Formats: sequence, structure tokens, C-alpha cells
Amino acid sequence: MAIIGFSRSAKMGVSAIVGLGNKCDIDEDDLLIFFEQDPNTKVIAQHCEDLKDGRAFAEVAKRVSKKKPVIVLKAGRTSAGAKAASSHTGALAGNDKIYDDVFRQSGVIRAKSLRDLLDFARGVPMLPTPKGENVVIITGAGGSGVLLSDACVDNKLTLMPMPEDLDKSFRKFIPPFGAAGNPVDITGGEPPQTYKNTVLLGLSDPRIHSLILGYWHTIITPPMVFAKLVVDARDEMRAKGIEKPIVASLAGDVQVEEASEYLYQHGIPAYAYSTEIPVAVLGAKYQWARGAGLL
Amino acid sequence: MAIIGFSRSAKMGVSAIVGLGNKCDIDEDDLLIFFEQDPNTKVIAQHCEDLKDGRAFAEVAKRVSKKKPVIVLKAGRTSAGAKAASSHTGALAGNDKIYDDVFRQSGVIRAKSLRDLLDFARGVPMLPTPKGENVVIITGAGGSGVLLSDACVDNKLTLMPMPEDLDKSFRKFIPPFGAAGNPVDITGGEPPQTYKNTVLLGLSDPRIHSLILGYWHTIITPPMVFAKLVVDARDEMRAKGIEKPIVASLAGDVQVEEASEYLYQHGIPAYAYSTEIPVAVLGAKYQWARGAGLL
Repeated sequence: MAIIGFSRSAKMGVSAIVGLGNKCDIDEDDLLIFFEQDPNTKVIAQHCEDLKDGRAFAEVAKRVSKKKPVIVLKAGRTSAGAKAASSHTGALAGNDKIYDDVFRQSGVIRAKSLRDLLDFARGVPMLPTPKGENVVIITGAGGSGVLLSDACVDNKLTLMPMPEDLDKSFRKFIPPFGAAGNPVDITGGEPPQTYKNTVLLGLSDPRIHSLILGYWHTIITPPMVFAKLVVDARDEMRAKGIEKPIVASLAGDVQVEEASEYLYQHGIPAYAYSTEIPVAVLGAKYQWARGAGLL
Repeated sequence: MAIIGFSRSAKMGVSAIVGLGNKCDIDEDDLLIFFEQDPNTKVIAQHCEDLKDGRAFAEVAKRVSKKKPVIVLKAGRTSAGAKAASSHTGALAGNDKIYDDVFRQSGVIRAKSLRDLLDFARGVPMLPTPKGENVVIITGAGGSGVLLSDACVDNKLTLMPMPEDLDKSFRKFIPPFGAAGNPVDITGGEPPQTYKNTVLLGLSDPRIHSLILGYWHTIITPPMVFAKLVVDARDEMRAKGIEKPIVASLAGDVQVEEASEYLYQHGIPAYAYSTEIPVAVLGAKYQWARGAGLL
């Protein structure tokens, strides 16, 4: 049910919604086989309380997840949840550690929460596949940079140690009291061009594989100006054949909500008032790419 | 910055925003002392990269948190975050385990993320203080019930084992294929009166201390009808002097967003498309109440 409202609000396409009920006949692996071949489906998001045939699921998921991200929200993780599941669908929720292993070995992205399932389903297929593990944070606020760094560790992302020459190149664009290194802290009073220059540099240097942007609301670079320049920078580089995953975290007055939506509608997962969700979406993309052997 | 837009969107009051910078003079414990006495402040939400004087903070926070919830988002939890913090404010982020202990011993609610900090600041002061640990889930969807149960365990909430007589009383209102026990699964095709009867029963039985509601969109009980009946039930019981924390999780089409907002504006923290956030807000309230010696 949640997918209905969420997808409409998020303007996210939905190729199909299948409710399996108690899985007396068709189950998850049958559906994975179906959606593997469905050209309208870019990502498969699954909520389940058990897997009746774990071995069949693992086998099929391992193959399918190499082509399309498979995201699973496994309910009944805890003893109380398992008890509720058994009274709901008769599911034998089983040892959660085993599910965790099955999902990891199958290249499946495990969502921790319903909101994660929805956010990953929306964001993961939108991001281009990263070409390596080097993530760089570019932020207009040092405080965001710290929280974004924490979120990188939480989501198993690698902050690239900044090479000296690249550090120098970033420093050309930012005030002397800004911090280069990684995060690149351009500081909170910079005009749009500083954001654009640093984002373009981040996209063009081949040692960097993904960008996390932290935006800090100022009157010098208002939210929609930021959003549009990021999309422009992405488009400029795309025209040169360079595509990298970009996610963004926006802090500020309510206009950051509109700016986040603009970014999302233009292929850049962006969230207002959160440093963790955009990084989690990027982390899910990396988890998928690693599982699919693309990294 | 994030508090500005978030609080406007959420119609949440903000008594003050203080930026401490590098804390060369005034620091967190000074502010806790100030806001302890400020009649306009119901909850204190703090983001920091270090505590310069941990002992002073612990001492003051222990006292203040007994009166008003103190919520802290500690940035620089991870090695990468700590490194970023040291280049941002010169913070010596220190061993995170020590912070965790200091916060726990001081009765401080630790937010895991920026969004948690904001959601807890909004929701926690709105909820009445629970009188005990017994939580009951009432849900229109068994699947929600399972996810809500998992979230209870994650947030250290206790699902009350359902006493036999109370089980019978709930069963009077729900179809024979519904599940009593806890979660109380009223099933997805019930009219508004079933929601209202079960919520009233949950509020009136003194063995139950808090309610988590799971709503499932149907044309028989549309989102706003659900939202209004919950507020009515709450008001009926409040007129009799009975107040308990209620949080709600709503799944369905976009109207659940409006219904969640209605509930929130009427004192019931409610979230569309999430089973985890409302339970986390209730969990934060419990954590505070326990720390303050009220449970």
C-alpha cells in the first residue's frame, strides 16, 4: 500500500505491484524470474516475512541481481516481529542471521526500514553505476561535511584520500579559510560559481568516482540556483561522456524542499534536512554494484 | 540551518536557535542551564562535534533532562567523521563509546541522524509521559503489525503480552479472521467504528500504557476519516482524564500524507510510508521518561 502514495508523491514509475499473500503457489523466486525479463522493470523491491524456499531464492536472486538491483525488506527480524509474522501469514521468520547471509551472498540490497525500501527503489536505478570506490564530499557547510562523513562510514563508502595536486586544484576555487581534503568544505558564503567549479572538477577528475554534495542555504547561492547549477554541471559532463553518481543533502529554509525535488526529478537523489538518507541511497547503489561484480 | 525549513514545514515552534561556533567561551552546559529555566522551551535539541567539558555537561544534563528532554546529535562518531570535525571546528571528537556512556548516564536522548534529531524534537514534547512500559499495536494491516513489532524491539519498547480477558474484549470488535494478541490486527476491510472501538479500548484499559496505530488505506475507512476518529477517541478519553502516548504509521495513497499531518497537528506523531519513524519517536519518549525516573 505504501508504494502507491509514495510513488505518486515521488513521481516514481511503478511497473507492477504484486501481492503474494501466503505464497501457496507462486513465490519470490518465480517473480524474480518474471521481472528479470520485464523491460519495464529497472529495480525489484520486495517486502517479505519469510522465504519458503531460501535455496531457490538465493540461486535466482544471485543471477537477477547482476542485471537489476533487488532490494528486500525482510519483516520479522526480531523475536516480536517474528511472532507477529507467524500470526499474520504463518511465516516461520527463522534466524535473521541466515537471511542476512543469504541476501549478502545473493547481491541483494537489504533495506532496514520501509522508508529505506522506498527511497532505495526510487534512487538506486536513477544513479549511474560508479566506476570505483572513491567518494568525495563537496559541502558548503563544514558541519554537514562531518555528518556526511559519518554517514559514509555507516554505509560502507570510502572517502578518497585527497591527492595533493587535486587538493591544490580544489583550493583554487575556495576561500583560504575553507578546508580542502575530503570533505571539500567550500564554506557557507560562496557564490554559485564556486559550487559549479568544484562540482565540475569533482566530475572531471578521473580519480573521483562519486560525489556527495552538502548544500547550505545562503542568499548568495539560493536553493534553486544550487539545484540548477548542479544539473547543468552534470549535463555538461554528460555531454562529454562522463557520468558519475551524485547525491545531495540540503539544509536551509523550506525552499530546499523544492530544490531537492528538482534535483531528484533531474536524476540526482537529494534530500532536505537529512545528511543520512542521500548517503544511504548511494551506499545501496555501491552495495548493488559490488554484488553484481561491477566494482 | 535544517531546523529553519523543517520547523516551518512541520509547523513546529522554535524558541531559540543558538550557534556556538568553536565554543571559545559559552558551551553546551551553559546553554542547558539557560534553557532549563526558559519557559518557552519544552525540549532542547543539540548538534555538536565534541564536548569540551564532558564532566560539566554530564552533571548539568543529568539535572536538566529530568525536567526537559535533551536530544543530542553527536557528529564525528566515526573515524572519517572525527577527521572532518577536527578540520571543521578543531573538535577532538574522541572515543564515541565514551560519549555514548555520558549521554546514557545523563538521561540524554541520542539521535542517530539529523532527521531523527528533528523528528524527536518535534514529536517527543507532544507526547504525554507514559505511565508504564506496556505498548500495544493496533493495526489494519498484519504486515504493518510485523514491521511495527520489529521497530518496537529496535527502539527498546515492550509489547505487552495480551491478557486473556483483554484479548476477548478486542476480539469482540474484530472479524474472526483477525488476530488479537499484540499486535491487534483488526484486518484491512473494517469500517471506522472498528478502529474507534479498538482505540478507545486501548486507551481505557489501564494495563495498556501506549498505543502504536497502523493504518491501511481502504475506501471503507479513508485516511482522513481514520485521522479524525483517532483524534476524537483521544479527546473523549482526555475528557475523562486519561492520556496516553499515541503514534501512528499510515500506508496508502497520497491522502495518507494529509491525514498524517492532521494527526501531527492534533498532537499525535504520525508518518506516511514509514513504520519505523513513529515507533522511534515513541522510543525516544520512553528513553527520556526512563532517564528522568518517571517510569
